[in-house]
Amino acid sequence: MQIGEHVRTDTGWEVVDESPTDDRGITIGSNFMIGNGYVGYRGTRPDQRADGFVGCFVSDTHDMADGVRRELASVPNGLYVRLSADGLPLTFDPAQAAEVELDVRTGECTHRSTWTNGTSEALVSVRRFASLDDLHLMMQQVTVVATHEMELRVHTGIDPEVWSLHGDHLGRVITTREDGLATARCTTPESKVDIAVASSWRFGPDSSQLWPGDDITITSAMAVATSNDDDVPFGPLERSFESAESAIELGYREALERSATRWADFWDTADVVIQGESTMAAQAALRFSIWHNRIATPAHSDRLPIGARGLSCQAYQGAAFWDQEMFNLPAFLLTAPEIARSILVYRWRTLDGARRKAERLGYEGAFYAWISGTTGDELCPDFFFDDVITGRPIRNHFNVWQMHISPDIALTVERYWNVTGDDGFIVDHGAEIVFEVATFVSSFVTFVPHRDRYEIIRLLGPDEWHENVDNEVFTNRVTQIALGAALRIHGWMAEQHPDRLAELDVGDRVDRWRDVHEKLYVPEPDADSLLIEQFDGFFALEDTTPEVLSERLIHPEEYWGWPNGVAVHTQVSKQPDVVQLFAVDPTYPLDVQRANYAFYEPRCAHGSSLSHSVHATVAARLASIEPDLIDQAVEYFMATATLDLESTQQDSVGGTFIGGMHTAANAGAYQTAVFGFGGVRIADGRVCIAPAVPPAWTSITFALVIRGQRLDVTASHDGHVVTSRPTNDARVELVVGDADPAELEPGGALRW
Amino acid sequence: MQIGEHVRTDTGWEVVDESPTDDRGITIGSNFMIGNGYVGYRGTRPDQRADGFVGCFVSDTHDMADGVRRELASVPNGLYVRLSADGLPLTFDPAQAAEVELDVRTGECTHRSTWTNGTSEALVSVRRFASLDDLHLMMQQVTVVATHEMELRVHTGIDPEVWSLHGDHLGRVITTREDGLATARCTTPESKVDIAVASSWRFGPDSSQLWPGDDITITSAMAVATSNDDDVPFGPLERSFESAESAIELGYREALERSATRWADFWDTADVVIQGESTMAAQAALRFSIWHNRIATPAHSDRLPIGARGLSCQAYQGAAFWDQEMFNLPAFLLTAPEIARSILVYRWRTLDGARRKAERLGYEGAFYAWISGTTGDELCPDFFFDDVITGRPIRNHFNVWQMHISPDIALTVERYWNVTGDDGFIVDHGAEIVFEVATFVSSFVTFVPHRDRYEIIRLLGPDEWHENVDNEVFTNRVTQIALGAALRIHGWMAEQHPDRLAELDVGDRVDRWRDVHEKLYVPEPDADSLLIEQFDGFFALEDTTPEVLSERLIHPEEYWGWPNGVAVHTQVSKQPDVVQLFAVDPTYPLDVQRANYAFYEPRCAHGSSLSHSVHATVAARLASIEPDLIDQAVEYFMATATLDLESTQQDSVGGTFIGGMHTAANAGAYQTAVFGFGGVRIADGRVCIAPAVPPAWTSITFALVIRGQRLDVTASHDGHVVTSRPTNDARVELVVGDADPAELEPGGALRW
Repeated sequence: MQIGEHVRTDTGWEVVDESPTDDRGITIGSNFMIGNGYVGYRGTRPDQRADGFVGCFVSDTHDMADGVRRELASVPNGLYVRLSADGLPLTFDPAQAAEVELDVRTGECTHRSTWTNGTSEALVSVRRFASLDDLHLMMQQVTVVATHEMELRVHTGIDPEVWSLHGDHLGRVITTREDGLATARCTTPESKVDIAVASSWRFGPDSSQLWPGDDITITSAMAVATSNDDDVPFGPLERSFESAESAIELGYREALERSATRWADFWDTADVVIQGESTMAAQAALRFSIWHNRIATPAHSDRLPIGARGLSCQAYQGAAFWDQEMFNLPAFLLTAPEIARSILVYRWRTLDGARRKAERLGYEGAFYAWISGTTGDELCPDFFFDDVITGRPIRNHFNVWQMHISPDIALTVERYWNVTGDDGFIVDHGAEIVFEVATFVSSFVTFVPHRDRYEIIRLLGPDEWHENVDNEVFTNRVTQIALGAALRIHGWMAEQHPDRLAELDVGDRVDRWRDVHEKLYVPEPDADSLLIEQFDGFFALEDTTPEVLSERLIHPEEYWGWPNGVAVHTQVSKQPDVVQLFAVDPTYPLDVQRANYAFYEPRCAHGSSLSHSVHATVAARLASIEPDLIDQAVEYFMATATLDLESTQQDSVGGTFIGGMHTAANAGAYQTAVFGFGGVRIADGRVCIAPAVPPAWTSITFALVIRGQRLDVTASHDGHVVTSRPTNDARVELVVGDADPAELEPGGALRW
Repeated sequence: MQIGEHVRTDTGWEVVDESPTDDRGITIGSNFMIGNGYVGYRGTRPDQRADGFVGCFVSDTHDMADGVRRELASVPNGLYVRLSADGLPLTFDPAQAAEVELDVRTGECTHRSTWTNGTSEALVSVRRFASLDDLHLMMQQVTVVATHEMELRVHTGIDPEVWSLHGDHLGRVITTREDGLATARCTTPESKVDIAVASSWRFGPDSSQLWPGDDITITSAMAVATSNDDDVPFGPLERSFESAESAIELGYREALERSATRWADFWDTADVVIQGESTMAAQAALRFSIWHNRIATPAHSDRLPIGARGLSCQAYQGAAFWDQEMFNLPAFLLTAPEIARSILVYRWRTLDGARRKAERLGYEGAFYAWISGTTGDELCPDFFFDDVITGRPIRNHFNVWQMHISPDIALTVERYWNVTGDDGFIVDHGAEIVFEVATFVSSFVTFVPHRDRYEIIRLLGPDEWHENVDNEVFTNRVTQIALGAALRIHGWMAEQHPDRLAELDVGDRVDRWRDVHEKLYVPEPDADSLLIEQFDGFFALEDTTPEVLSERLIHPEEYWGWPNGVAVHTQVSKQPDVVQLFAVDPTYPLDVQRANYAFYEPRCAHGSSLSHSVHATVAARLASIEPDLIDQAVEYFMATATLDLESTQQDSVGGTFIGGMHTAANAGAYQTAVFGFGGVRIADGRVCIAPAVPPAWTSITFALVIRGQRLDVTASHDGHVVTSRPTNDARVELVVGDADPAELEPGGALRW
């Protein structure tokens, strides 16, 4: 079944792109990457090099080579294979059928194509995976089938010529090479991370003279390790060598099987099954998205961020944005809470960086970095984009005004606690995060005596095209929620963990949190129109549409936003703050959500990959009172789930490359499926389920893990059911449909 | 003696421009305008029309014809005279000597030139003045001398084709014409002001056939009146008719004499005499400046603003800026306090507009308009300049962030009181202004609990190239001074005028003023470097020079300022906030002033016409500890005094015409002479005098009017003297030099 222009699926587990041509190299390389959260290897052909956007990005290798951007290193390519026939190089023949396939059930990617040198040609099949069993390991099997007699020569080993956005992160590469094994070592020039790559390979059969139909297979095991890894007691070189050698001994099939077993464990809770007559495209795009969100996530560590582009490229510096808590994490929260926990522990470990940022800017507490690497210090440069018209740098204020990042994290801490009941996390980590955020926001707000309220001014909300605004409703509301979380957790700690509370030395800061929480202004819906103004003065801006603004562009890569972009003085948003607010806080009355969705949706230009899933989730929810919206929800769902497959976002803005996998959109596909159509939401500390199954679908089935209990939900037009596995050991409190909270016993079911 | 490239003076009272060519039409028209504070008539030739920038601007005729800018009307031209010889039009011959002369002692302007039509030519002399005796009246005498026999024909009357920046403010013009008299009536389209112009003329002798050496004189009296005038009991047409007719009866010479008598009264206190061997250029430029400041000022009314370009053109909407209190008014404060009073009463009359602005923007009290017309409502549009590169409008925040305008006015109220002792003004007007400003600034400031202080954030200071800055020292300090003034005046009122105080209903607002006054953060000099940071983070900006920035320009008319101009992220200023601060608050220690002057002076690009006089004044003061600075002071003095004569400022920025007379620079020349070289300052409520006479000058002599007492000051290298006229009736307390305060008796003198 066709998913998009270039992509099809046959079973709902794999996606197949039938046009893996070089002009689509950036897209193909990202979509068909392999990875495991430790390493990401782009879906390029084995003979490609830097100019083909070959990259293998390793977590925790941040380095600043150009003096400006700190980004992940692109390590030497240990899966490099070059072929020649009868003395002439074989290269990919774009004129003949080719395809690249990713099976997300096992994590294996296969390229199939014909390579030619003008006189000879061969069918080349490349299978490849990154192991979820040994995170250092990637394996590849290149099978060459001759269509006529030829003398085939294979060149393999480690190629240091890899794609890198901002400078060379390898420095001097020391290589060794013996029969069937090569190694490369280097140290990142600025951050001094030692990186080792080992590549082992085997040929079979060991003959270079092929007859028509003969095949030869080159099996390679590439392993990478760094001095920052926890599991390299004898250093990265030893570790990479050991991984590569033992994998090549084990063989491709067995190594793949071990990894696939781990993927099966993941899918056991992560899978969302969409049934229906023509749902296979949606199904495959959704799984593709869920998988990519997972391989973007360094789940092996609790001290690493999820990069906004995962490990697909170096854009956005391999660092965490608010995307991490608002998009990536929620896709794990109810399926793999241990990953959600690691992510939040990362935020705890980076508190000092956030404290340094707050202090530097004159605030108290923890102002989390807009772009957060391993230390939590702000990585976002003052000048992010260039003005493509004048060539002058633009002073974007992502790093100093987009303060909602801190309350976003704090409210996620409380949600994690609500869902998992993980008191230990709160005591050891969560409380400190939330308290430091409460202190920060209390130092950021402004008290306006003559209105007897706190306001938050000079903001940049999620809609980044409107900088320097006041009382942006998303920011004000999440700040209020975060303060509430701090007060609730403070109260609980005072009762349950007074010693730890004393250690955290809150003192009378709590009085200020309470005062700000009580008196913080949050824009309310208008009594008549029910509209919530995105920020003070928004409704007075020019009321126009993204289409009109497109026509005002002078240059196609222009930044639309602040200070002088076409959207700044208009009501057109990059992403919809008010709709985003409902995604985060579903407690707003449905008629308020409906009125605002209707107003803001046509004004959103979707300049961010984060916006589609938010629209989809809220539209699905609104289908209960506005049934027509379900179709728009499905459209937006497909938009987020195929955003990378169809490559619908700009690769470059204002001279800055921002391509690669949009991990927040990937996670957003899960969110739309489960929080939108599945109707799952967390309100007042409880999980609620109120599904809205699209008419063209028969059912949606997904798992929930709540307080350690495994539940299974199936929503269909005939009714919905949530069951608790008999192996569970505790009751779960749930709200289903419009009912009052109910308790679900192990082995029991709730139907409605 | 030559003053500049084109201009000379012969006596120190007049300036003569020897190149009144059409390419310099804007400059010549402004410099050689005639005026009296009620009307301004540009120094164009009588045969010129709209394309020659002919304009007659009348105070209190604000009208918005284009729906965007409210500006003064340019009224029909009643001094229009066209000549022809032998049937062919005579026009100005730029190839022959011509000059235009302005004698500021009498206010008379004379153009002398040769007009030709290819075959005939005539010497044409045009004398012209605007009466200070009858403000409605302008008179002109055109004398034509034939160089050979010719049949001369004269066409005169009222020409409605006048220069207007933004639209036609005349609408339908109803004209009448009979022998020797024409009238024109119209109503401004938007504001509905009725305007009448009458023009009477006489020829002499009454012959059209001229022989070589024969002359003919056309005497015209043009009078204008509007329905907004106070003195038009029978309507504007009657008033203009009456003025024109009686003037033509009286004759040019007698009418000029009556006006000149008034000018003599003005000069009696306003003149500043510079003596020395080659001081005539400085002398003439200074008097030229003082005169222009006076004719810009609607001293006849206490309900009209001083336009930033006076009545020389429509730029800046004929409206008041902070220039009015910080530049124009101080030039009257010690010479014509009744004019200073009128200006401040204007601010009192516009309190409601300022209150509306404050309320609209969410503040309390009075936030004075950045561009203030007759009602005090904000005239400054949100988008003032265009980006000349993209053609898009720039959102300048002059109108919402440049809050120092309010404290500027408040502190001037107190200074006026200090100098005049005019208690009645404080009771009736001043206290209300000061209290409303104190309330406003108290609502604008931000309390930062963790620093236990008030700060002022999101500011635009006098240096308009740096918007959205925090704790800009000029703004913070004038705010503190204004709050101090409110507390002092409140204390005095409580003692002396409790009933009026009760009427003003201050209530507990005074407690907040006191709290803010006590805890307001004002950046202090660094202990080592003595430098005061212009605003938070200024020292971290790129340290470069105006010259370097010039080279970065893409377009010569580019706006250098916020948001994307070349100066924004640098230490280059449009005008120097910190030096400006010393001009307003001379109490900073001299070594602090010296260190900061040395730092900031080379970083100032003088993008504003306000900056030169401020540098000059402070440099002259610093000469006491840094003698070399006196030369720089003289240079800056000449720069401000000849700024219009030499036309050194840009006429247009970002597509907006900003040419015309720079009245603040004109007033700044007086300030430099008297406050700089004369060393007059007001500190702790007293007038202090500590002159610094430039080496090339012999002496400076000027008058001071303090508490109604006329003093005369002469400063010279041999010593200084201040005398009190015997006709005075009270002692005056003064501080001269380094001495303690002394009392000066009527008829007495202080020498030092």
